[in-house]
Amino acid sequence: MQALADLHPVLAGSVVRASLATLERQMLDIVCSNDGADTPGSCQAVAAASYHLKTGGQRVRAILALHAGSCLGLAPCDGRILAVACELLHNASLVHDDVHDRDVERRGQPSVWHKFGDEVAICAGDLLLSGAYLALSQFDQVARLPDLFARVHSRVSSAVRGQCGELWRPGHSPATLDDFIKTARAKSGALLSLPIELALLAAGQTHALGLARQAAESFAVGYQIYDDLLDVEKDAARQAVKNQEKNQQGSSSACNVLLILQADPACANARHTAVKIGLQHLSLAALTSTNLPLQSGSALHAMVMQLHEKLENLP
Amino acid sequence: MQALADLHPVLAGSVVRASLATLERQMLDIVCSNDGADTPGSCQAVAAASYHLKTGGQRVRAILALHAGSCLGLAPCDGRILAVACELLHNASLVHDDVHDRDVERRGQPSVWHKFGDEVAICAGDLLLSGAYLALSQFDQVARLPDLFARVHSRVSSAVRGQCGELWRPGHSPATLDDFIKTARAKSGALLSLPIELALLAAGQTHALGLARQAAESFAVGYQIYDDLLDVEKDAARQAVKNQEKNQQGSSSACNVLLILQADPACANARHTAVKIGLQHLSLAALTSTNLPLQSGSALHAMVMQLHEKLENLP
Repeated sequence: MQALADLHPVLAGSVVRASLATLERQMLDIVCSNDGADTPGSCQAVAAASYHLKTGGQRVRAILALHAGSCLGLAPCDGRILAVACELLHNASLVHDDVHDRDVERRGQPSVWHKFGDEVAICAGDLLLSGAYLALSQFDQVARLPDLFARVHSRVSSAVRGQCGELWRPGHSPATLDDFIKTARAKSGALLSLPIELALLAAGQTHALGLARQAAESFAVGYQIYDDLLDVEKDAARQAVKNQEKNQQGSSSACNVLLILQADPACANARHTAVKIGLQHLSLAALTSTNLPLQSGSALHAMVMQLHEKLENLP
Repeated sequence: MQALADLHPVLAGSVVRASLATLERQMLDIVCSNDGADTPGSCQAVAAASYHLKTGGQRVRAILALHAGSCLGLAPCDGRILAVACELLHNASLVHDDVHDRDVERRGQPSVWHKFGDEVAICAGDLLLSGAYLALSQFDQVARLPDLFARVHSRVSSAVRGQCGELWRPGHSPATLDDFIKTARAKSGALLSLPIELALLAAGQTHALGLARQAAESFAVGYQIYDDLLDVEKDAARQAVKNQEKNQQGSSSACNVLLILQADPACANARHTAVKIGLQHLSLAALTSTNLPLQSGSALHAMVMQLHEKLENLP
C-alpha cells in the first residue's frame, strides 16, 4: 500500500494524523498491560507482539476507522478505539498468517515466528486478538457494545474462513476465478470493511452497512489482483514450497489469479484479463464508497482511486 | 479431572446439570455462526472447532461459573453466558497448546492439528477465542461489560504468559520450583480463576476477586503437581522429543515438578516433597474457597477436596 505521506489529502488530515500517533501508543499499552504482574522477567509473547507492532505498516484500517468516525461525528477518542481494535485484529491475523504461510519476512524485517519461534508467534497473535476486544470494550457508549462485538466476531470469522484455505482444498481444486474472488472478499475484505462498519454502527447508520461491505470487499479483490500481478514469480515459488510442506490434508492448486486464468483454456491473455477484472472491482468500490453517508467512505475512495491508477499503469 | 457424575453433589445440582446441556449447544452455535454465509462449502476451521468441542471434556470452568453464578444470584442465562465464554477460551487455549506441544491426542482422540493440520488448528483456536468474546458480549447488563472484558483479557494475557514458556528459556534455566509454581498459577490458574471472578464481577462482589484468584491458583498448582506425578514417565519422553524439536530459541530444561526437585541436591525425596507441596497448596485453596461470598466457591472447594484425597492416596 501507499505510504501515508503519499496518500490523498483527505487521509493526511490533521485529525487522522494526530490520532495515529496516539494510536501507536495505545496499541502498545494494551499489548504490554499486565506484563510482569504475576511472572518474573518479561514475556516473550508480549515482546513479540510489541516487536511486530513496531515494524509499522500503513495502518490503512486505522485510517479508514478514524476518517469514517470523524465524518460520522464520533468523538476522536471513540474513533481511535475503533481504529485500535481494527489494527490489533489485522496485526493478529498477520502474525498467525505468517506462521501458516512460513513467510520469513514482514515489512522488511523478520516475521514474528521467524524471530521468536512458532510457539511465541501463536501466543503473540492470541494476545493481539484478545487485545482488540479489550480495546473495543472501552468504547464509550456501552449500549452499542453488543452490536460492535457481534460485527467484529463476524468479520474475524470471515477472515478465518478466507485464511483457512478451504476453497482450494480437495473437492474444490483446481481453484476457480469465483473461488479467488470469494477468498479475497473473505480474507482481506472482512478486515478492510470492519473499520467503516464499526464507525457506521457506532453512529447508528446501520442502513449503510451492506454498502460499506460491498465497497471494501470490491477494493480487496482489486488489491489482491494487483498484489498477485506484482508478486507473481515470488508467489509461484513460495506456493511450490508451501505445497511441498502441506500436511496430510494436501492443499493442491494455488489461489493466485494468474495461475487460475492461465489454466483456463477460454482465457487468451491471463494478465490482461486479470487487470480488467481488477479494474472492474475497483470501479464498483469507487462507486459504492462515494455513496456512504456523510462522506464516511471518502478515505476508502481515495485509496481505491490510487490503486485503480496503479493497476491501470502496471508495466 | 473427575467425571461429572462422580463429582460432589453440589456440582451435580439441577441448575448446573440443566445448564450444561444448553451450554454445549450454545458453544456450537457460536462457533458455527456465519458458516457458509459468504463462501462456498463448509469451513475447515469451523469443522475443526466443532470437532474439538464435541470431544467433550469435563467442563470444569463451566461448572465453576454456573455454580458461582447461581450462588451469587445471577439469572441462569447470565451464568451460562459466563460459562460459555470461559469454556470457549479454555478450549481455544487447548487447541493452540496442542499445536505448540505437538500433542497428537486430546481427550482420547486425535488433537485438532493432528487431524486437520497446523493451519486449520491455528484458525480454529482463533475462532474459539473470538467466540468467547462474542459470548460474553451477550451478557445482559451492558454496564458491566467493560469490567468483564478487562478481566477476560487480563486472564488470557496470564495464560499466554504461562504457556509461552518464558520462565524456563535461556536466562531462566534450569527451572526452579518457584518458576514451576508461577507458571502453573499463570497457565492453568488464570482460566480456572476466571469463571468465579466473572461471576463475582457480574454480581458486584468485587471485594472477593483476590480471594477467588488465590483459591483457583492454589488449586492449579496442586493439580499441576498431581498431573506431573501421574504422567511423569510419559512427560519425560514427550519433553525429550519437544526439546529436540524446539526452534532456535532453544528451550532447555523441562518445567516438571519432579525433574526440578530431583535436580535439587537439598531435596532428599522428590516425589514425597512434590506431594507435600501439592497438599499445602490444596489446603490453602480449600481454605480460601470456603471464604468466598454466598458459598460461591463451594464447587471449587469440592474439586479441591477430591484432588486432595487423590494426591494423598497416590500409590
